[in-house]
Amino acid sequence: MSRFMKNRSVKVGLPPGSLVHIGERKTENVTIDIFNYDEMQFQEKETKKVKECFSFKDKATVTWINVNGIHELEILKELGDCFGFHPLVLEDVLNTDQRPKMENFDDYLYIVLKAFYYGSDNNEKVEDQISLILGSNFVISFQERQGDIFNPVREQIRSGKGHIRKSGADYLTYVLIDTIVDHYFIIIERLGEKIEDAEEELLANPTSQTLQTIHKLKKEMMLLRKSVWPLREIVSSLERDESALIKKTTVVYLRDVYDHTIQVVDTIETYREMLSGMLDIYLSSISNRMNAVMKVLTIVATIFIPLTFVVGIYGMNFKYMPELAWHWGYYTVLSVVFVIGVFMIFYFKRKKWL
Amino acid sequence: MSRFMKNRSVKVGLPPGSLVHIGERKTENVTIDIFNYDEMQFQEKETKKVKECFSFKDKATVTWINVNGIHELEILKELGDCFGFHPLVLEDVLNTDQRPKMENFDDYLYIVLKAFYYGSDNNEKVEDQISLILGSNFVISFQERQGDIFNPVREQIRSGKGHIRKSGADYLTYVLIDTIVDHYFIIIERLGEKIEDAEEELLANPTSQTLQTIHKLKKEMMLLRKSVWPLREIVSSLERDESALIKKTTVVYLRDVYDHTIQVVDTIETYREMLSGMLDIYLSSISNRMNAVMKVLTIVATIFIPLTFVVGIYGMNFKYMPELAWHWGYYTVLSVVFVIGVFMIFYFKRKKWL
Amino acid sequence: MSRFMKNRSVKVGLPPGSLVHIGERKTENVTIDIFNYDEMQFQEKETKKVKECFSFKDKATVTWINVNGIHELEILKELGDCFGFHPLVLEDVLNTDQRPKMENFDDYLYIVLKAFYYGSDNNEKVEDQISLILGSNFVISFQERQGDIFNPVREQIRSGKGHIRKSGADYLTYVLIDTIVDHYFIIIERLGEKIEDAEEELLANPTSQTLQTIHKLKKEMMLLRKSVWPLREIVSSLERDESALIKKTTVVYLRDVYDHTIQVVDTIETYREMLSGMLDIYLSSISNRMNAVMKVLTIVATIFIPLTFVVGIYGMNFKYMPELAWHWGYYTVLSVVFVIGVFMIFYFKRKKWL
Amino acid sequence: MSRFMKNRSVKVGLPPGSLVHIGERKTENVTIDIFNYDEMQFQEKETKKVKECFSFKDKATVTWINVNGIHELEILKELGDCFGFHPLVLEDVLNTDQRPKMENFDDYLYIVLKAFYYGSDNNEKVEDQISLILGSNFVISFQERQGDIFNPVREQIRSGKGHIRKSGADYLTYVLIDTIVDHYFIIIERLGEKIEDAEEELLANPTSQTLQTIHKLKKEMMLLRKSVWPLREIVSSLERDESALIKKTTVVYLRDVYDHTIQVVDTIETYREMLSGMLDIYLSSISNRMNAVMKVLTIVATIFIPLTFVVGIYGMNFKYMPELAWHWGYYTVLSVVFVIGVFMIFYFKRKKWL
Amino acid sequence: MSRFMKNRSVKVGLPPGSLVHIGERKTENVTIDIFNYDEMQFQEKETKKVKECFSFKDKATVTWINVNGIHELEILKELGDCFGFHPLVLEDVLNTDQRPKMENFDDYLYIVLKAFYYGSDNNEKVEDQISLILGSNFVISFQERQGDIFNPVREQIRSGKGHIRKSGADYLTYVLIDTIVDHYFIIIERLGEKIEDAEEELLANPTSQTLQTIHKLKKEMMLLRKSVWPLREIVSSLERDESALIKKTTVVYLRDVYDHTIQVVDTIETYREMLSGMLDIYLSSISNRMNAVMKVLTIVATIFIPLTFVVGIYGMNFKYMPELAWHWGYYTVLSVVFVIGVFMIFYFKRKKWL
Repeated sequence: MSRFMKNRSVKVGLPPGSLVHIGERKTENVTIDIFNYDEMQFQEKETKKVKECFSFKDKATVTWINVNGIHELEILKELGDCFGFHPLVLEDVLNTDQRPKMENFDDYLYIVLKAFYYGSDNNEKVEDQISLILGSNFVISFQERQGDIFNPVREQIRSGKGHIRKSGADYLTYVLIDTIVDHYFIIIERLGEKIEDAEEELLANPTSQTLQTIHKLKKEMMLLRKSVWPLREIVSSLERDESALIKKTTVVYLRDVYDHTIQVVDTIETYREMLSGMLDIYLSSISNRMNAVMKVLTIVATIFIPLTFVVGIYGMNFKYMPELAWHWGYYTVLSVVFVIGVFMIFYFKRKKWL
Repeated sequence: MSRFMKNRSVKVGLPPGSLVHIGERKTENVTIDIFNYDEMQFQEKETKKVKECFSFKDKATVTWINVNGIHELEILKELGDCFGFHPLVLEDVLNTDQRPKMENFDDYLYIVLKAFYYGSDNNEKVEDQISLILGSNFVISFQERQGDIFNPVREQIRSGKGHIRKSGADYLTYVLIDTIVDHYFIIIERLGEKIEDAEEELLANPTSQTLQTIHKLKKEMMLLRKSVWPLREIVSSLERDESALIKKTTVVYLRDVYDHTIQVVDTIETYREMLSGMLDIYLSSISNRMNAVMKVLTIVATIFIPLTFVVGIYGMNFKYMPELAWHWGYYTVLSVVFVIGVFMIFYFKRKKWL
Repeated sequence: MSRFMKNRSVKVGLPPGSLVHIGERKTENVTIDIFNYDEMQFQEKETKKVKECFSFKDKATVTWINVNGIHELEILKELGDCFGFHPLVLEDVLNTDQRPKMENFDDYLYIVLKAFYYGSDNNEKVEDQISLILGSNFVISFQERQGDIFNPVREQIRSGKGHIRKSGADYLTYVLIDTIVDHYFIIIERLGEKIEDAEEELLANPTSQTLQTIHKLKKEMMLLRKSVWPLREIVSSLERDESALIKKTTVVYLRDVYDHTIQVVDTIETYREMLSGMLDIYLSSISNRMNAVMKVLTIVATIFIPLTFVVGIYGMNFKYMPELAWHWGYYTVLSVVFVIGVFMIFYFKRKKWL
Repeated sequence: MSRFMKNRSVKVGLPPGSLVHIGERKTENVTIDIFNYDEMQFQEKETKKVKECFSFKDKATVTWINVNGIHELEILKELGDCFGFHPLVLEDVLNTDQRPKMENFDDYLYIVLKAFYYGSDNNEKVEDQISLILGSNFVISFQERQGDIFNPVREQIRSGKGHIRKSGADYLTYVLIDTIVDHYFIIIERLGEKIEDAEEELLANPTSQTLQTIHKLKKEMMLLRKSVWPLREIVSSLERDESALIKKTTVVYLRDVYDHTIQVVDTIETYREMLSGMLDIYLSSISNRMNAVMKVLTIVATIFIPLTFVVGIYGMNFKYMPELAWHWGYYTVLSVVFVIGVFMIFYFKRKKWL
Repeated sequence: MSRFMKNRSVKVGLPPGSLVHIGERKTENVTIDIFNYDEMQFQEKETKKVKECFSFKDKATVTWINVNGIHELEILKELGDCFGFHPLVLEDVLNTDQRPKMENFDDYLYIVLKAFYYGSDNNEKVEDQISLILGSNFVISFQERQGDIFNPVREQIRSGKGHIRKSGADYLTYVLIDTIVDHYFIIIERLGEKIEDAEEELLANPTSQTLQTIHKLKKEMMLLRKSVWPLREIVSSLERDESALIKKTTVVYLRDVYDHTIQVVDTIETYREMLSGMLDIYLSSISNRMNAVMKVLTIVATIFIPLTFVVGIYGMNFKYMPELAWHWGYYTVLSVVFVIGVFMIFYFKRKKWL
C-alpha cells in the first residue's frame, strides 16, 4: 500500500456517516484521560469507560477529554450520542487518512490535524492524526495511540503555571495546537541537520547513496508539507472566525501560532529548494568526475597510441628496410618517440588538461 | 485520434443545440432504471421505453432516472421535451468530450462529471462521462454504458439504510457524486502502488522500460487531474450555491465531499512531483552507470596501452639493439612491465576509481 | 521579421488614431457581404461599394456586414464615419498584430479575435485576425482575406435552421465566436495527432529530427495559447457584462462557448506538459543510446587490449626467451589468451553489461 | 558595479528627501524645452534658466516643460519650490535606479518610467529614466539626456495634427507614455530578430558562442521585463484612477496603451519561453554531436582492435607455430581478418550505428 | 545546527509567553541608549539601568529607547511591565528566530525585522534581528548586539537635519525601517558584484569551484529573500493601516519605503533567475569541454588504430609473404599509411571536428 494514501477502498459503497476505522491500529487498549479544571481547582481521572465522561458535559468548569486509540467504534458512538456530534464528524475521526481541516458546526468546532514527533522511548519519528472537538466548556481530543505529546500541557494544568487554568476551552485548544506546531519545529530542525549533512557529503564525496538520501529527504518534506499547508488555513480561519467559541483574548495567541505555521511552511519551502539545488550539484559533480576519468584515458591513449604505431613500423619484417641496419637507428627511434611524448605532454599542459 | 481530445470536428458548422453524439458507442442497448422512493416505500423499474418515466415527473416522491447509454438521440429528445431542458444541456449530455462543469438553470442544475473505476468483471480501468440533472423532486443520470458504479446506491435505496430514503433529490445527487469521488481514491491507490513499484525498480535496476513506465504514469496522472481539477470548483459552487434545490442539511455533506476532492487533487500533485523526482533519479542513474562503464574501460586501457608500447619497442627488428642480447633482458622487461602495472593500480586505488 | 510580432515600427511617432495597415496584404480585392434578416425574410448581397451598407444602419432587422480584406483605409473610414466608431477602433481593426480583446463603447462592443483554420482548398493552416463590432441591430465583421470560415453561418441564415433567424445581433456574434472556437478544436486535434506521432517515433526510434519536431510543436502551442488565453477573458466578460447589447437568453450560449474556451486552454496546457515530458524522454534516450555504444566499445577494448599485450610480449626479439623454444609454447599462449577472454565475457555478463 | 542595480550606497544615512543624484551623468548641459499651447496657438522656447518656466504655472493653456539632464540639483530644487512638489518626488527624479511607479499626490501625479530606444545617430540601444509630473494644466518631464524620443510629439504639437492641441495635459501625458511603449515594440522586434537568428544558428550549427548569445538575450529580456512589468500596473491604475486629473475621454486612450503594455509583456514571456526551449535544444545538440563522435571512435576501435590482436598472434616468435609454415597461411589470415571486418560493419549497419 | 532555523526545541512544553532567549548571545553587556527630543531640544543618555527609561513614558516629547543585547530577561520584563506589553511580544523579542512580522495591539505596534549590514570595523556581513515597538510618543528598539546601523539616525537627531525632530514617533519608526532597507541595497549590490564575477569566471574558465560559488550565492539569496519577502507585507500593512499611531504625513514616506522593498525583492528574483541561468551555462560548458576532450581522443585513436593494424600485418612471421621480399615494399606500406592518415585528417576537417 502506498505511503501517501491509506486504504480507503473498504468504505466505497457504504452510506455516508458509516463508522469504519481506516488505518493501522496503533494501540491495543483505548484509554480516556479526563481533566476538569477552573482557576481554583482541578480534577484528573483515567478510565476505560466512556460513561464517566458524561457527567462533565454540563459542568461550567473546563473539561478536557483525551481519548487514546480511536478504533473502538462503540466508544465513539457513545461519545457522539452524548455530546450530539454529526455522524460525519465521527466518520472523520475514525478515518486516519484525513487531510487537516476545520469545520464549524455552530455549537462546536471540529479540527483534525497531523502530529509528527519523536517518541520519548525509542526516539523514532511518530505520525499521529489528532482530532479536536471544541465546545463551549469542553475539548475532546482523539489520538491514535498512547501519545506523550500532550504531557507538558497536563503538567501546566496540574501546576497551574501560565494562563491555562485561568482561561477557557478555546485557550486549551490553542495550547494543544501550539504543542503540535512546536513539534513540527523539532522535526524540521532534525531534517535540516540531515540536509546539511547530505550537503557536506555532496560537496566532499558524492556517491549514488547521496542521491538516494536527497530523494528520501525530498519525500519527507513532501509528506510534511502535505500536513502543514492545510494547517495554515485552519489556524487562519480559527483566528478570523466570528465563532462565539473563540474569545477575543485567545485570538492574539492564535495569531502567534499562525505566524509559527507560516514559518514552518517557509522553512519547508526553503529546504525543498535547497534539495533541488543539491540535485543539480550532484548531477554536475557526476559529469565532472566523468570528465576527470575521460581526461586520464585521453591523455594516456593519445600519447601511447601514436608511439605504438611508430615502434610497430620497425617491427615489420620487410627485407629492405635501410633504417634497421643503421647503427644508431634504435636510439634514433627511441629519441623520436621520447620527443613526441614530451611534446604531447606540453600540449596537454597548455590546454590545461593536465 | 488523440487520447486527450475526441473528434469534435463533426459538429463544426452545425447550429448550436444540434444533437450529435460525440465519442465511442459503449453499449448496444439503451436501458433506463427508474427508482421512486420516500421514507415509507420504494418502487424499482427497468425499461427501454422512455415514456414510462413521464408519469413520475409530478410525483412528490423522489425519482431517480438512470439512463445507461446516451447515443440514442430520440430518447434524449423525448426526455428533454418532457422535463423542459435547454437544448444545450442535451447537446452536452451527448458530447462525451465535456470538461466537468455545473450549470444552474434556476429550476434544475446540470452537472457533468468523469467517473473512473475498475469494472467488476475484468478489472480493467473504465472511463465514463456521467451527467446529472437535479430537479426539485428528481435526479436524472446519464451513463455511457451499463455501469455498476452506482450499484451500492441502489442497494442503499432498497435496504433503506443510511439517510437516503429520508432525504430529497439533492441528497441523492450528493451520494452519486460521493460514489464517483470514492472511486477516484481507488484509482489513485492503485496508481500509487504502481508508482511505488516503479520507484523500487528505479532504485534497484533502472532500465529504459522504467522510464517508459514513469512516462505512462505521468500521462495517467495528467488525464486524471484534467477530470478532478474542475470537480473541485463544481462541488465548491454546489456547496455555496444559493440555489433552492440544495437544502441546508445537505451542505454539510457536500463540504465533506469537497474535502475529499481536495485530498484527491493534493495526492495527484504529490504523485506528479514524485514522478518528476523519479525522472531525475533515472537520468542520474544512467549517468552513474555510464561512469562505471567508463571507469572499467579507462583502467584497462590506461594500464595496457603503455605496456603494449613497451613490449612493442622490443619487437622492433633493428640490428643493433644491445638489450636484446642481454641474458636477463627479457625478465627485466617483464619486471618493468609488472611494476608499471602495479603502480598504476595503486594510483587508481588512491583516486578511488577502483 | 519575427513570427511572434509584426512590424509596428511604421506607426511610431504618428498621432493616436492614425489609420495605418500593419501586416501582410492577404487578399487583392476587398469585398463586402451583407446579410439582412429577421424571422420572416432574409436578404443577401455582395458588393465592393461600402455605401451600400449605409441604408441598413437604421433598419430594425438584423444586419451582418462582413468585410473581406482590411487594407483599404478608405472603406474603413467611410464605415467608421457612418456608424460613428471611435478612431482607436478603426486603428485596431487595421493592425493585424492585435492581442485579442473586447472593448465596451456603451452603444457598441468591439471584439478582436484570432482565427486559425485549415483552408478548404489547399488544407493549409490559415491565421486570420477577425474584428467584430456588435451594435444593437448590426454586426460588422472584418476578415483579412476571403475566408470561408463563416460559410456554415451563412448557410444557417439562408436555411433558417437553428435559432439564428429568430434571435438578434448578439446571438449572431455568439455564433461567429462559436465558429472560431470550434475551429480551434480542429487545430488542436491535428496538433494532438502530430504530438502522438512524435511520441511514438520518440519511443521507437528518436532522431534529432524528432527533437526539432517537438520544438516546432512547442512553438505552435505557444502561438495558439497566445491567441486563446485572452479569448477566455473576452468571453467571460461578455457573459458577465451588464451591457444592454447582450440579451439574457444569449448569456446561456456564451457560458457554453466559455466552457469550450476553457477546454481548449486546458488541452493546450496538457499538450505543452506532454511535450516537456517528451523532451525529457528524448534527452534520456540519447543518453541511453550513448550508453549502449559505450558498452560495445568498452567490452571489445577491454577484452582485446590486454590480449594484444600478451601476444605483444612474445613478439619481442630477445635472444633469451625460454618460452619461445617450448614445443607447446604457442598453444599455451593461445589457451591463456582464450581463457582470459572467456573469463572477461563472464565478468561482463555478471555485471549485466552484455 | 552590477548592471541590475546602481550604486545607492552613497545615500545610506542621509535623511529622507535629501537630493542626491544616483547614476551616471549622461549629458553635460541641462536644457529645458517649454511648450505652451491650446487649440488656437502654440509657443516653443528652449532655455537653460529654470526661472523662465515659472510664468507658465498659472496659465490656463497646457504647458509642457521638458528637462534634459537631471544632475543639476539647483534646477530641480527651484522647480520643486515653484510648483510645490513633495521632497520625495525630487529625490526620486534624481535617483535613476527607480522601479517604474505612479504616485498620486491629489493635485499632481508623479510617474516614473524606463524608456528604451535606439538613438537616431549611432543606432545604439539607449536606456533612459523618464519622470513625468502631471498637474491640472502642465506636464513636467525629466530625461537623463538630450533625448530625441519625444521629437514626434513636438512635431504633433507644432503641426496641430491629431487631438493633441485640442486636449489637455492628461492627453499629453498619455501621448508621452504611448511613445515610450511604442519604442518597446521596436526593441522587442529587434530582439525577436536576434532570437530567430540564434535559433537558426542553433538548428544549423550550434557553437558555444550560440549558448552565450542565448544567455545574453535572456538577460536582455530580464532587464526589459523588469521595466515593463510595473508599467502595466501604472497604466492600469491611471486608467481606473478616480483622479480628477484624468478626463473620461482620455481613459479610452489609456485603455489602448494598457493593451499595448500587456502585449509587450506577453511577447517578452513568449520569447523567454522560446529562449528556454532553445537552451534545451542546445544541450541536446551537444549530446547528439558527442554521440556522433563516439560512434566513429567505437566503430573504428571495435573493428581494428580485434584485428590487430589477430595479426599480433602471428607476430609472435615461437619456434613451433605450424601456421607460419603453411603456404597459404598469410592469405588465410588476411581473409579471416577481412571477413571479421566485413561482418562487424554489417553488424553495426543493422544496429543503425552506421 | 542548521543555518535556516535556530534551536527552538528548548521551548517545547513551556506555557505560551514564557521568556526564553533563543539564539546566540551576541554581546556581553546590555546597554540602553535613550533619546528624547522635540523640535526645540534633545537629550541623549546611555545607561545600563532599565529604570532610567520609566520617567520618559509619560512625556509629551518623542522618546527613543534603543536596547543593545536582548538576552537579559530581567531588563525585558521590567520594560514590559512598565509599558504594559503583552507577554507574547516579549517572548518574540527574545526569540531571534522570528519571521519578520507586524502586530497591531491597538495602543502600540510590534514590528520585528531582520537587518543585514557590513560591520564598520571588520567589513563582515552581520545579521541582526531588530524589534521595534511603536507607541504614541515612544519607540523602543531591540538589537542583538552593539550595532552601529542606527548611527546616522542618531546623527540626524543630534544635528536636527531633515524632518526627524519636527515629526513624531511614527516618523522615527519609518526612518529606522528605511535605514534597514537601505542596507539591503548595499548587501544586494555586493552580492550582485560577486554574481557578475562568477559569471565572468563562468564564461572564461569554469571550474567546479565556480559551481560551488554559484550554489553559495543561491543560498545567500534564499536567506535574504526569506527576510525581505515578509517585510513587504509589513510595510504595506503599516501604510494602509487605519491605526491612529501612523499619521497621514508619514504614509507618503512609508509608500516610498514600500517601493524600495519591492525593488529589493525584484532584484533578488532577477539575481536568482540569473544564477539559475548560470547553472545551465555551467552544465553545458562541462559538456562542451568533455566534447573537446573526446574529439582529440577520437581523432588520434581513429587515425592510428587502423595504421597500427596495417604495420601489424607486416610484422607477422609467415614464411610466404611475397610483399616482404619486394624491394619497394617498405616504402609502399609507409606511403599507404601516410595516405590513409592524410585522408582521415581531411575527413575530420570536413566533418568540422578539427
